[in-house]
Amino acid sequence: MTQQSTFKPGLDGVIAAETGISYLDVEQEEIVIRGYDLIELSEKKQYLDLVHLLLHDALPQQDERVTLENKLKAEYALPQGFLDIFKQLPKATHPMDALRTGISMLGGYDDDLNNWDKESTEDKAIRLLAKIPNIVANSYHVLNGTKPVTPNEDLPYSANFLYMITGKEPTKQEAAYFDQSLMVYSEHEMPNSTFTARVIASTNADIYGALTGAVASLKGNLHGGANEAVMYMLLEGKTIDGFQHLLYEKLKNKEKIMGFGHRVYMKKMDPRALLMKEALKELAEEKDRMDLYEMCDAGETLMREEKGLYPNLDYYAAPVYYLLDIPIDLYTPIFYAARTVGLCSHVVEQHANNRLFRPRVQYNGPRGLHP
Amino acid sequence: MTQQSTFKPGLDGVIAAETGISYLDVEQEEIVIRGYDLIELSEKKQYLDLVHLLLHDALPQQDERVTLENKLKAEYALPQGFLDIFKQLPKATHPMDALRTGISMLGGYDDDLNNWDKESTEDKAIRLLAKIPNIVANSYHVLNGTKPVTPNEDLPYSANFLYMITGKEPTKQEAAYFDQSLMVYSEHEMPNSTFTARVIASTNADIYGALTGAVASLKGNLHGGANEAVMYMLLEGKTIDGFQHLLYEKLKNKEKIMGFGHRVYMKKMDPRALLMKEALKELAEEKDRMDLYEMCDAGETLMREEKGLYPNLDYYAAPVYYLLDIPIDLYTPIFYAARTVGLCSHVVEQHANNRLFRPRVQYNGPRGLHP
Repeated sequence: MTQQSTFKPGLDGVIAAETGISYLDVEQEEIVIRGYDLIELSEKKQYLDLVHLLLHDALPQQDERVTLENKLKAEYALPQGFLDIFKQLPKATHPMDALRTGISMLGGYDDDLNNWDKESTEDKAIRLLAKIPNIVANSYHVLNGTKPVTPNEDLPYSANFLYMITGKEPTKQEAAYFDQSLMVYSEHEMPNSTFTARVIASTNADIYGALTGAVASLKGNLHGGANEAVMYMLLEGKTIDGFQHLLYEKLKNKEKIMGFGHRVYMKKMDPRALLMKEALKELAEEKDRMDLYEMCDAGETLMREEKGLYPNLDYYAAPVYYLLDIPIDLYTPIFYAARTVGLCSHVVEQHANNRLFRPRVQYNGPRGLHP
Repeated sequence: MTQQSTFKPGLDGVIAAETGISYLDVEQEEIVIRGYDLIELSEKKQYLDLVHLLLHDALPQQDERVTLENKLKAEYALPQGFLDIFKQLPKATHPMDALRTGISMLGGYDDDLNNWDKESTEDKAIRLLAKIPNIVANSYHVLNGTKPVTPNEDLPYSANFLYMITGKEPTKQEAAYFDQSLMVYSEHEMPNSTFTARVIASTNADIYGALTGAVASLKGNLHGGANEAVMYMLLEGKTIDGFQHLLYEKLKNKEKIMGFGHRVYMKKMDPRALLMKEALKELAEEKDRMDLYEMCDAGETLMREEKGLYPNLDYYAAPVYYLLDIPIDLYTPIFYAARTVGLCSHVVEQHANNRLFRPRVQYNGPRGLHP
């Protein structure tokens, strides 16, 4: 076999898939989702519209949207005894590990697991979209000894998700910001977790397996884990001065600073971060926490001036979640829950036009040894 | 960002990593494992030697081998209550899904989970190598209502694995063939599951996450699932005539026939398959099942003559496992257990010299739509 490419560590710049789902157009500063601009969608539409667009390749008509929401609500419930299993896991289990285990277990409850039709995989995607928020919120409650929160079907999809997390009905404004955060997290071309899901799906593995692997990927602090790291950094900083001091210290010690920079967006601010920055400002005004907004803004300025680095989505999503009273440990699981629809769409697309991922290596070890 | 490569579906021929662990030298027909020929190792050494070579970059001295085996034995036991959890999963849970869930759960029991030192990751690899055979065998027993088999520390590592599966002490010959099958499955450059593990590890995800994703990958019937499919095909064929008829039917219907062909070995027989073919012959003679050997041989001839395709490892490992009285559902989990050491070595190597995997896409959808 001829090796036709030179080695690009991390497959940097390498085309790994053909897709009609999304594209980061860096030149035109646009995150394209099935032809639409994600930012425009996030300003004008709601998360469920985006779910319909991603799964069914079109924004929904009013009746289609109602049908989708009803299908989801019908699948909210977890299997009998499912949450009890989390009681038996060690209390210290990380919420992302609990989610990984939960999605892995869920496969065994699907009577249609070995059905490969596109329609069946799309039905499984609906089940995953319906149940993952429930697993995220309630595995956390069970592991922390708080009472699980039964889904409330009277609330819209994303408001119910926030309700299951906090146990209290969100205000319209809180629900709207949370919904918007789910939108900006929903899909983003070929980040590591999406790539993981497609690589797994390419063996003809089922969607539960692909999505389990994606949880493992998103846990890493170079990927999804960043939003939690940002919040701990903000809390450690406490004030504008304290936060600036902390950032200078980290820069001096050449530590990696979470929430800044992105493999693809190198020279400008992640447009999703900009949207979350606006959400943070409004929410901070409402909740009388403008100090938090100003800390973030000062950190942004410092990093731009000192390092030429711009905030990514995690940098501004973290304080938004903080003001929504979401436990910090759940920031990454929520990112994952929001991304579920993107992951499922990629699995469906991979299965529809599949080629097993099986790259080669550059071997740098010895040769010719004998035992 | 410039996109410097043309699109190769499945990353066919694309170099995805630098590695000193293994290399498929197709021209010289050699599977290189840290400088040694895998086939020569499999003829002259045992699985634990290979484990030491893969993890510690050298074949062990006698005392090092004893130390390794003792370390493994000390970690055989599963956490208190761990196996009870499988009682609560649906009875129909696929053994690979049970294994995926089991490895995912295991992370939560590791007090040292967030320690990133190379030494700590290697210790975790030992724990995984010790516990995965136990999970494979005993999650199967629990799900099937048979009694779990406590590890027997008086047996060598691989003999104990086979003992936990069948519940009976293997003969020296059975243990030797099983050990050899683990060796040929242990490591194989950059197949999909190894690639999955490295992609996940590159986010700084922990080794449990990387190995959980690899189970999901190996379940797919284009990857590990093939050995089970081979056995069902042999059983359906029943006789030489029946098997030939079945293969002709499948060829006529353009069905994919499992156990033949390999992305990398295109024009010759997988050398690992050759070794397992020899093992099958000896085992078949011993067990008076030469009919099974002859069926396989006839199928090999037919496929070479009709399609120019050669058997891969799965084609001959499957009937070997059958003659070792291993339940067919466990063939893929055993493949995975054997590969654990290769996967762990790749995770350690990825973490030691990391670059986040984050490729790009070729977008083929619409542009310029507005909601």
